[in-house]
Amino acid sequence: MWNKNIETFIGCESSFEEAEIVLFGAPFDSTTSYRPGTRFASRTMRAESFGLETYSPYQDKDLTGIHVFDGGDLELPFGNTERALNEIREAAQEIVDADKIPCMIGGEHLVTLGAVKAVFEKYPDLHVIHFDAHTDLRDDYLGESLSHATVIRRIWDLVGDHKIFQFGIRSGDRTEFNWAKEHTDLHKFNFEGLEQAVEACKGHPVYFTIDLDVMDPSAFPGTGTPEAGGVTFLELLTAIGKVGKLDIVGMDVNELSPIYDQSGASTAVACKVLRELLLAVNK
Amino acid sequence: MWNKNIETFIGCESSFEEAEIVLFGAPFDSTTSYRPGTRFASRTMRAESFGLETYSPYQDKDLTGIHVFDGGDLELPFGNTERALNEIREAAQEIVDADKIPCMIGGEHLVTLGAVKAVFEKYPDLHVIHFDAHTDLRDDYLGESLSHATVIRRIWDLVGDHKIFQFGIRSGDRTEFNWAKEHTDLHKFNFEGLEQAVEACKGHPVYFTIDLDVMDPSAFPGTGTPEAGGVTFLELLTAIGKVGKLDIVGMDVNELSPIYDQSGASTAVACKVLRELLLAVNK
Amino acid sequence: MWNKNIETFIGCESSFEEAEIVLFGAPFDSTTSYRPGTRFASRTMRAESFGLETYSPYQDKDLTGIHVFDGGDLELPFGNTERALNEIREAAQEIVDADKIPCMIGGEHLVTLGAVKAVFEKYPDLHVIHFDAHTDLRDDYLGESLSHATVIRRIWDLVGDHKIFQFGIRSGDRTEFNWAKEHTDLHKFNFEGLEQAVEACKGHPVYFTIDLDVMDPSAFPGTGTPEAGGVTFLELLTAIGKVGKLDIVGMDVNELSPIYDQSGASTAVACKVLRELLLAVNK
Amino acid sequence: MWNKNIETFIGCESSFEEAEIVLFGAPFDSTTSYRPGTRFASRTMRAESFGLETYSPYQDKDLTGIHVFDGGDLELPFGNTERALNEIREAAQEIVDADKIPCMIGGEHLVTLGAVKAVFEKYPDLHVIHFDAHTDLRDDYLGESLSHATVIRRIWDLVGDHKIFQFGIRSGDRTEFNWAKEHTDLHKFNFEGLEQAVEACKGHPVYFTIDLDVMDPSAFPGTGTPEAGGVTFLELLTAIGKVGKLDIVGMDVNELSPIYDQSGASTAVACKVLRELLLAVNK
Amino acid sequence: MWNKNIETFIGCESSFEEAEIVLFGAPFDSTTSYRPGTRFASRTMRAESFGLETYSPYQDKDLTGIHVFDGGDLELPFGNTERALNEIREAAQEIVDADKIPCMIGGEHLVTLGAVKAVFEKYPDLHVIHFDAHTDLRDDYLGESLSHATVIRRIWDLVGDHKIFQFGIRSGDRTEFNWAKEHTDLHKFNFEGLEQAVEACKGHPVYFTIDLDVMDPSAFPGTGTPEAGGVTFLELLTAIGKVGKLDIVGMDVNELSPIYDQSGASTAVACKVLRELLLAVNK
Amino acid sequence: MWNKNIETFIGCESSFEEAEIVLFGAPFDSTTSYRPGTRFASRTMRAESFGLETYSPYQDKDLTGIHVFDGGDLELPFGNTERALNEIREAAQEIVDADKIPCMIGGEHLVTLGAVKAVFEKYPDLHVIHFDAHTDLRDDYLGESLSHATVIRRIWDLVGDHKIFQFGIRSGDRTEFNWAKEHTDLHKFNFEGLEQAVEACKGHPVYFTIDLDVMDPSAFPGTGTPEAGGVTFLELLTAIGKVGKLDIVGMDVNELSPIYDQSGASTAVACKVLRELLLAVNK
Repeated sequence: MWNKNIETFIGCESSFEEAEIVLFGAPFDSTTSYRPGTRFASRTMRAESFGLETYSPYQDKDLTGIHVFDGGDLELPFGNTERALNEIREAAQEIVDADKIPCMIGGEHLVTLGAVKAVFEKYPDLHVIHFDAHTDLRDDYLGESLSHATVIRRIWDLVGDHKIFQFGIRSGDRTEFNWAKEHTDLHKFNFEGLEQAVEACKGHPVYFTIDLDVMDPSAFPGTGTPEAGGVTFLELLTAIGKVGKLDIVGMDVNELSPIYDQSGASTAVACKVLRELLLAVNK
Repeated sequence: MWNKNIETFIGCESSFEEAEIVLFGAPFDSTTSYRPGTRFASRTMRAESFGLETYSPYQDKDLTGIHVFDGGDLELPFGNTERALNEIREAAQEIVDADKIPCMIGGEHLVTLGAVKAVFEKYPDLHVIHFDAHTDLRDDYLGESLSHATVIRRIWDLVGDHKIFQFGIRSGDRTEFNWAKEHTDLHKFNFEGLEQAVEACKGHPVYFTIDLDVMDPSAFPGTGTPEAGGVTFLELLTAIGKVGKLDIVGMDVNELSPIYDQSGASTAVACKVLRELLLAVNK
Repeated sequence: MWNKNIETFIGCESSFEEAEIVLFGAPFDSTTSYRPGTRFASRTMRAESFGLETYSPYQDKDLTGIHVFDGGDLELPFGNTERALNEIREAAQEIVDADKIPCMIGGEHLVTLGAVKAVFEKYPDLHVIHFDAHTDLRDDYLGESLSHATVIRRIWDLVGDHKIFQFGIRSGDRTEFNWAKEHTDLHKFNFEGLEQAVEACKGHPVYFTIDLDVMDPSAFPGTGTPEAGGVTFLELLTAIGKVGKLDIVGMDVNELSPIYDQSGASTAVACKVLRELLLAVNK
Repeated sequence: MWNKNIETFIGCESSFEEAEIVLFGAPFDSTTSYRPGTRFASRTMRAESFGLETYSPYQDKDLTGIHVFDGGDLELPFGNTERALNEIREAAQEIVDADKIPCMIGGEHLVTLGAVKAVFEKYPDLHVIHFDAHTDLRDDYLGESLSHATVIRRIWDLVGDHKIFQFGIRSGDRTEFNWAKEHTDLHKFNFEGLEQAVEACKGHPVYFTIDLDVMDPSAFPGTGTPEAGGVTFLELLTAIGKVGKLDIVGMDVNELSPIYDQSGASTAVACKVLRELLLAVNK
Repeated sequence: MWNKNIETFIGCESSFEEAEIVLFGAPFDSTTSYRPGTRFASRTMRAESFGLETYSPYQDKDLTGIHVFDGGDLELPFGNTERALNEIREAAQEIVDADKIPCMIGGEHLVTLGAVKAVFEKYPDLHVIHFDAHTDLRDDYLGESLSHATVIRRIWDLVGDHKIFQFGIRSGDRTEFNWAKEHTDLHKFNFEGLEQAVEACKGHPVYFTIDLDVMDPSAFPGTGTPEAGGVTFLELLTAIGKVGKLDIVGMDVNELSPIYDQSGASTAVACKVLRELLLAVNK
Repeated sequence: MWNKNIETFIGCESSFEEAEIVLFGAPFDSTTSYRPGTRFASRTMRAESFGLETYSPYQDKDLTGIHVFDGGDLELPFGNTERALNEIREAAQEIVDADKIPCMIGGEHLVTLGAVKAVFEKYPDLHVIHFDAHTDLRDDYLGESLSHATVIRRIWDLVGDHKIFQFGIRSGDRTEFNWAKEHTDLHKFNFEGLEQAVEACKGHPVYFTIDLDVMDPSAFPGTGTPEAGGVTFLELLTAIGKVGKLDIVGMDVNELSPIYDQSGASTAVACKVLRELLLAVNK
């Protein structure tokens, strides 16, 4: 009767070997300039996923029918951004090397950079689909080049022009919006133009990064920088369904901050987004 | 000047004798498998209803113009589910026997079973309209046949096939959705098909049960198991208006959990739903 | 390096002299009959505005490009309503006398009366556009003529019939709605009819008062009396854009109650509404 | 079975006629200059008293063995301090006229003035025992003579020098402490000197007012202005036992602010203080 | 690198085989009559134990130096009290049968009955040391014989007179205190008399049950029924040190309710109590 | 009337030139390994100091009678620990160079290192008095040499053996306690031995660093890592009085985390500690 206490996101109970997707947490938020706390997202989602069904009536699929391994959380050093990103990259590397899809739970959005580096090494033609309220395109922020506010710019350093497709964006400074006009495919406010972006990504390897604050604060208040004017959960669901048809080689969900989620509704919606993402990407 | 301190839901100050509708609370949540707390819904709604107007600009009706008696809360034993349901049934029985409409405030959704039993005894042709995020159609849950997750199945044991109309459903396991195809009239996600259901119920006695989590967590986060993808308050209002035209012989609102409602907005919307329900059902 | 610690709403760093708009807080909530706490709105908004960008992608304008002075908060006596209103009036008077636009952060909605009195003295043809969930048209409330629930009625005492345009209203007693039919231009629930109202106000000086609870509690739960059935943030944004084209001579945003805003999302949306309002009104 | 829903503080179920003590709430906090919210104390204590036993193992007495009537809450106008105090005075007058002891639940501390006025009229030799963290001896506060910060000074206007005995005081301005040296019997920090004060009050009618913030914030954080360095619950209990032996003709407990009491522990201790006070005063 | 995600209370990483003590959670609170929520104690303590050191400067011992296995949480049916207790008993039985000491994390206090039954079967001379704010000696509660309020009475049914030693008790009804005079060794308010009790238990097998609400709410507010007047953390620590010298054959800590612990300080103190208990009992 | 909005800690309104003490905030918490949030301490204390009196009845001194300048908060880069510490050092340097005493509000405890470096440069004989629950003596933490858990060790790198006096320590690993035996003067649990330490520091320049978690969580729950078993507020006050008599050349208070302080009582006690510290150090 008595076994070790294994905790996974609900329905993600495959072994590493049989898994197609490998889930792991990257509890890091040291560069968060406003309200920290996303470091607790992965462990909270794991615990609260108990309130979620494994079955999706939207996709008529079930987490028990696919193969996901949950490797728990990385132990990252706080305050040393470079080292933390390296550790994320190495973790993702092992997953990519095993021909599996890394699915990371942030943490602040900067963690995406670590995972993208690992994926990009294998897939130099990497395209990136980015759902977010924020541009994240600053070249530096408070003098730092590695920051939650610069992460997509750093990814652009890797993948180059016209490989990054941004949706839902409604916050940033003017220079970022202007810069985007020449270098990324930025869509303000919602998912208008997503079909064309999906079309453009067909046949290419795609990294899919979801900053959960792309949702309106009414649906997702529990985040460091809630930005009014976002998309609904159902709009996000539909968009995930479209992107999920692409050749996803890496993905993440970011920026849940449980301390600002007294009702638990933000954690619950984050769990559901993750379930739908896993089911949509699974082939 | 000094009288006993009588507390009612706002505007529900009739005597039992003159009342058409009898309001009471069923503070029970012992089978809640995830986050308990709905036991405090009725007393919190009563206290916070002070922030609500008695007048509805939607229906142009006023609670002071109809006759509702508020009998306070039942004192239910925690941990003994069968006994608690019997006490609910007996309370509802007295109301039904007096030719009045019971309107119960849960509590977890299982309390509905107690009230339905009382109503069904008098109205063997009982039809049930069920708004909820969850199917509640399991045959047993964690080995228990009496559970918040089985309540509609237990009601089906009484009323039988094709008498139960479910709306807004977006969570359950696959077997429940499949079972529903043959035994109930289940509508996923929203109120599509409600007109036909109302048509089908015309001329029959109807029990109307509202699990408030049918609303999206953006409108109603303060509940044990918030499920993204629900209906808006205005959609619920419109639906209540349609159902309210039927021959309602019993009704309830369930699953507000005040402890998860730091802002009070969930309690406030629950109060407003109750006001609109009372006004819609009153003839 | 070491200077005094000046705190302003983000981007509102003009001197009084060069400013077109003068921002100030009126931290008063003594007549609030239900849940007090709006006295902390202005200082909380100032502190939390640090999480907001100065640039609006909606209007393609930036707070750093316009001239707003932030004068901090008035120090108002609690419990003496008349004196508090006088002090608000005097403060607004100085702004109006300097040919600037006062932009007040409440506080409960009654503070509007103080500012309107100052503005009305200079602009006897004053028209008022009022966004709110509540009618605020009672003649007295709990025996008091000066109350958050009577404020628009008191303003009507000044400006008279057919000068007040109300939108989003969904709570009040029947007599208020009836009274409005003859004296104000009241629009229930949303912004239907706003274009005509804007047309009617053209060429007249306009005071624009926004009770933030005009928004649905899903978007703005952090307020004393949340009223389900309100407008979305984007609907409010569009409406502000339309009204902002008028000749605004005074304005305010009211009724944020930070203590009921555990996630901070209500404060964040209030800050964004204020940013958009400042940008829309600035010529 | 179905009766009106009567809510009392636990064990306070006597009729007005048979009662020796009459409990009532004075939900007023309009002059609170810092954090309002005490208006909700009485109704919250009534609801949460359900978690308390009626039996005191400290005094070996039981609330079911004494006679207390709970008259509910007064309906007070917010924002009009003078009128509110008059209504409190009238309510207390009726109790005093019936030869019963008024026991008021505040509200901010200013409500005490209303009750003391009623009691003083009958007992011109009134002595006052005052437990508090704050001096409350300002002559005016923000220009107002009626304020939570002036209440004991206003009572001194009535009863005069050397009739007021203050304990636990640890906050005020220097002029207040100096003024007290000539006019009241002020004891800093704790209950040192209480025996002598009790001795001095013997044979005189005594009004006993407890600002619950006399307790240390560790025991009682849920108040508007928590002041570190206070007494423990057990020290307060012992002190109540000593004062309770006097000829108490009126009493109150004040300044619980439920909104700052997330754990409920402050409300629970307030309920227990009230139980012990009722049992100690009862003869 | 990628292993399954094993979560234990900090420093409790032995295998079942090598362990002397077996830790497990019993997440059950269905009979809680006031505020439920203790079901989340064990998983929250496990997660938050990350903030605790394994080393105790009080005992100069380290969790890494003893052998504790953490078996995770039982999956208990809510609403069926008898079945839940049986499952707890069976789990404890397996531990006792393997000659190890069960250490259970509740849950409400009733869970103790399940564990005691298992232990008692092996040790018919079982003595019980009970730290609590509440007597828990009712014969039935709201008509139920199995309840958090009856648990020690039910244990008395097993072990008989003068085998139960109760400390810290300060809440109950008069009949319970009277009944205790003849049947248990009840010490009110604190640990006076503990040395004698320890003396009396020497040479006997002892079950040690700690209801954490024995601590004062200042130290431990996060519980369902906080009772002012309790012991400090350091007093509890000293008492645990004394009891830990006995022949402990089973033990538990109960009644942490994380939902009422916004600051996390109650969870932190519960974790530290558990650490000290494990270190004190380990030989 | 209309001036810029200057915000200071209450009573700290001197100019930089006339000030003896210069207050500033260091909002940094990037290396916090458990629960971040101390970055908001300084701004929250400034805002909430409005609830505090400037007069101390403990010391019979008043903040309005001494000279303190409040320079606001530094703008520190998150995620780059080295740069942040440099900026703190430079800020402190300017204060020390002007022959004033820096008084810093953290932030996590690591910020102390920046200020000590500045002070140490001027006073090579610097002694350090350290109140804390934690040893903070690790040589590295999670591989980082700059961390909240290593800060006192890094300070020892500067000042050397037997210059650091630690009090209240009750958490750390065994190696830290052992290391301290040879290198610092560490006192476990409370202030025993403080007189001797003060004696030893007489005639030397002293840096005084207070980690507020030296207080028991009952008095100060609002911190990242609450450690049961700490000192009371009054014990801390007495200790500050003793240390304040020394030649303090720099000081700080750290580790308030407002997000974990729902009641505000932790912020209030932090403000009072700061007031008493400023008054005690002022000559």
